Amino acid sequence: MLTGQMMTTPLTVTAVMRHAERVFPTTEIVSITAAGRHRYCLREAFARVRRLANVLQEFGLQPGARIATLAWNDHRHFEAYFAISCSGYVCHTVNPRLFPAQIEYILNHAEDEVLLVDAAFVPLVESLAAQLKSVRHFIVLAEEGAAFPPTRLPWLRYETLLAGAPSSFTFPQLHEEAACALAYTSGTTGDPKGVLYSHRSTVLHSFAICMPAAFGLSSHEVVLTAVPMFHVNAWSLPYAATLTGCKQVLPGSKMGDAAMLADLIHSEGVTLAAGVPTVWSSLLTHLRNTKMSVGRLDRIIVGGAACSSALAEGFEREFNVTVRHAWGMTEMSPLGTVNSAPRHADLKQKLKQGQPIFGVELKIVDSAGRELPWNGVSSGFLKVRGPWVCREYFRQPKSLAHDTSGWFETGDIATIDPQGCMQIVDRSKDIIKSGGEWISSIDLENAACAYPDVREAAVIGVPHAKWDERPVLYVVAHHGVMIAPHSLRECLSQRVASWWLPDAIIQVDSLPHTATGKLDKKALRAFHRASLQSETAVPQDK
Amino acid sequence: MLTGQMMTTPLTVTAVMRHAERVFPTTEIVSITAAGRHRYCLREAFARVRRLANVLQEFGLQPGARIATLAWNDHRHFEAYFAISCSGYVCHTVNPRLFPAQIEYILNHAEDEVLLVDAAFVPLVESLAAQLKSVRHFIVLAEEGAAFPPTRLPWLRYETLLAGAPSSFTFPQLHEEAACALAYTSGTTGDPKGVLYSHRSTVLHSFAICMPAAFGLSSHEVVLTAVPMFHVNAWSLPYAATLTGCKQVLPGSKMGDAAMLADLIHSEGVTLAAGVPTVWSSLLTHLRNTKMSVGRLDRIIVGGAACSSALAEGFEREFNVTVRHAWGMTEMSPLGTVNSAPRHADLKQKLKQGQPIFGVELKIVDSAGRELPWNGVSSGFLKVRGPWVCREYFRQPKSLAHDTSGWFETGDIATIDPQGCMQIVDRSKDIIKSGGEWISSIDLENAACAYPDVREAAVIGVPHAKWDERPVLYVVAHHGVMIAPHSLRECLSQRVASWWLPDAIIQVDSLPHTATGKLDKKALRAFHRASLQSETAVPQDK
Repeated sequence: MLTGQMMTTPLTVTAVMRHAERVFPTTEIVSITAAGRHRYCLREAFARVRRLANVLQEFGLQPGARIATLAWNDHRHFEAYFAISCSGYVCHTVNPRLFPAQIEYILNHAEDEVLLVDAAFVPLVESLAAQLKSVRHFIVLAEEGAAFPPTRLPWLRYETLLAGAPSSFTFPQLHEEAACALAYTSGTTGDPKGVLYSHRSTVLHSFAICMPAAFGLSSHEVVLTAVPMFHVNAWSLPYAATLTGCKQVLPGSKMGDAAMLADLIHSEGVTLAAGVPTVWSSLLTHLRNTKMSVGRLDRIIVGGAACSSALAEGFEREFNVTVRHAWGMTEMSPLGTVNSAPRHADLKQKLKQGQPIFGVELKIVDSAGRELPWNGVSSGFLKVRGPWVCREYFRQPKSLAHDTSGWFETGDIATIDPQGCMQIVDRSKDIIKSGGEWISSIDLENAACAYPDVREAAVIGVPHAKWDERPVLYVVAHHGVMIAPHSLRECLSQRVASWWLPDAIIQVDSLPHTATGKLDKKALRAFHRASLQSETAVPQDK
Repeated sequence: MLTGQMMTTPLTVTAVMRHAERVFPTTEIVSITAAGRHRYCLREAFARVRRLANVLQEFGLQPGARIATLAWNDHRHFEAYFAISCSGYVCHTVNPRLFPAQIEYILNHAEDEVLLVDAAFVPLVESLAAQLKSVRHFIVLAEEGAAFPPTRLPWLRYETLLAGAPSSFTFPQLHEEAACALAYTSGTTGDPKGVLYSHRSTVLHSFAICMPAAFGLSSHEVVLTAVPMFHVNAWSLPYAATLTGCKQVLPGSKMGDAAMLADLIHSEGVTLAAGVPTVWSSLLTHLRNTKMSVGRLDRIIVGGAACSSALAEGFEREFNVTVRHAWGMTEMSPLGTVNSAPRHADLKQKLKQGQPIFGVELKIVDSAGRELPWNGVSSGFLKVRGPWVCREYFRQPKSLAHDTSGWFETGDIATIDPQGCMQIVDRSKDIIKSGGEWISSIDLENAACAYPDVREAAVIGVPHAKWDERPVLYVVAHHGVMIAPHSLRECLSQRVASWWLPDAIIQVDSLPHTATGKLDKKALRAFHRASLQSETAVPQDK
């Protein structure tokens, strides 16, 4: 091989920090904290990052040691991201919304040695402390003089540690393949699984999300990071926004607080914002109720779940804010596709999950593994490949979710159109196989939600002697209204094929959700089976 | 080391091609050719790329073999870029404007085995043929039935070869460090030197130039590539525009033809365009003379030489087109900095060479190698480092232009301001050291050009017993006007410090230029020395 003669400078998070500190020293990071709105610039941020690096060095950890965070989106969490990764340790962000038993499992499985914890989560950690096998240092993230309840654990105080540490530090030279961050999937099936990101994958993914057709980040933008920093590194925004000198607005624990988001959008001049549909739905309602404008807001990135037509139309038509639907997974750093259709583009096209960003390869295959055409109609199992896609899970057998050619199996069923625009049809474990054909539970749920009284809908497949499986629809109504099944069925029949119509429509007061807020169909199936066995309250609608 | 567990998918030009073909199959490439305007889409382009790959495979070359092109910006050159690199060979773009002896040197030094040559350059190659030691196959790039003058060499015809080759081809799996392209510097000092780009450096550089604050490429844009594909890979636009699905407009040999560029901008809906200042100056004049609008043109990227205030003001104020000044070198793939100041920003700031793009590190040092502050005032030797910066020249001793720490020495003197915005003061070999201080030959030339009768100016340092060096100014006037030295000196004294005023002002009919159109100060110094020795026509102005 004739090797190119260019420098082999490694792609590291340290390079991101160094670049930003030299080129964007006065760029601001604004955070909502327990003590109010905090504001500083990147120069100050990285001075504190170096103080934290000195603190961590004192612990005498080995390179690659895991340091966990249980924290909201604020400047201290930002500092932890950089100090940990650039010191050669692994920044393990833990989702505090998980069940305590999952958090315990994750911390022990990762063998975290240091815990950085928002004051709000101190009681949670205290309750787990007896089960934690590897943690040697507990650090609470709070103001210097913040009141502190009596505790059993020997908590170190973050601000006290930083105040006592020098602001100069020489970061180690790192290999770009070195691990830099760790995130666990929420684990609806089995135990949570860890994805171990490398410096290389993180930098490449950051490059990709900065691109104009992805998030479009530059120093002329102000980004509101309304997706948690404990969830897939807030979609890499802390890295990518830093790399491009984009002002960052971190809403602390308030990302579900629409009034706070609206205030931040106005007062900080936010131009783009990233978050899940529920965040944007509540913001949309708030904007309508208060008749507020959206200030400089130009676009929102909607990911984590499907974007509804109501959400897209609301922002685009009423507020002239472009909606960009994005799709990804923890295993993909997370970004796989972005829909960069322009504002007011055809809604059907706009609600697709989007085109793969360069670096991510997609394919769809049938159940025999044969590749399917990109015609927008053929649906199959979606597989992905690329430099920021998980190769194997942390401390798991290699083949857990990969085919024999090394493609990652997303667990989704999707179509891809001739322009490479992908649309998720369903999760492969949720799709209903009826008479050799597929019924999309998601499409059926969306159709049900078009019925005015339906607040939430969930469709599961139940075994059927003749058709293998048939759909059953569970619905939750607005404000205790009783839904007439025949009326809902009539509505559905105008939107889906007749053989898709559910065999039963069951109204319940609420539906089960996972710790991250997704419909828990595994639990719903168990409930449905239990209901059948007890032969009780299963209304029959046929 | 704990290694991250993400896929190690290599960064290759092949991945760029594969992505574009799947996601942007209908994106157009429009070319100006000898036979008129040619238009096709990426799907057709890559089908022809595979045909060409089959043709090349028949030659039985080794991986890493060099294949040279002598060609303008059109679809065939585009096909050569991808077919050569993705086949595992090295695409060696040769600048046909170089002196024939330099072209001969370069082709022999690179040991090119195949030559792809625009019909226009066939006579040039014929004239060199006897001296070419390694070339085994000569291919002429022209229409199928194009007339062809009688020649001595056994020319193969590109279109005939493609017509006879299959359109399917399995490209090899390449290592990302494999060489993919080769470009020689124009070599004002000594022989031209080759820069051997890797697949990795090319992909990373492409990522960087796509960023919003660099060129801002996406499928919503239409780019006019008015910088030659034989010069630093047209600033990587053929890769980056392909990667993002940006429609490409390739002006063939007409990039100096302002009427053609204006026509292309209108008829193809160009939104951004990249080129050197002389291209934009002539376009500006044309637009003014014809009172044409600029259509959808949003911004121009100006690089290769300093952008004048007249150029920036003309486009921004008269035509509302944003000017982005960029700086780079063949050794940097080429991009190092971009000035992304918004339209109508302060002109002084806008004319700086810009902020480093992420990946490129800059530093300025004094003559003792001590790093200088980024205060916008201290000027020093500019050094660069990064994953798309040359580590060593092709087949040259390692240390040719690198310091002992591996930084590349650009040969420029620059300042950097607190926001990381770099400004070139002068070439280090052109700056005039007078009494322990520096005089910028560029600043003095710019001051001279502000005098209405001056068409071009060149300043060189000449030895001086007391001050070490003193500046001498050479000027060329408009339309044979005789310039009064005292009047020009009066004008200069309003713009530069009195000790900067040249010791002599010499009017000449023309100034020497390099093959790439830059002022050849080496030749001017030789001319000046010869003039002094012959004690003839050196006017004294003191």
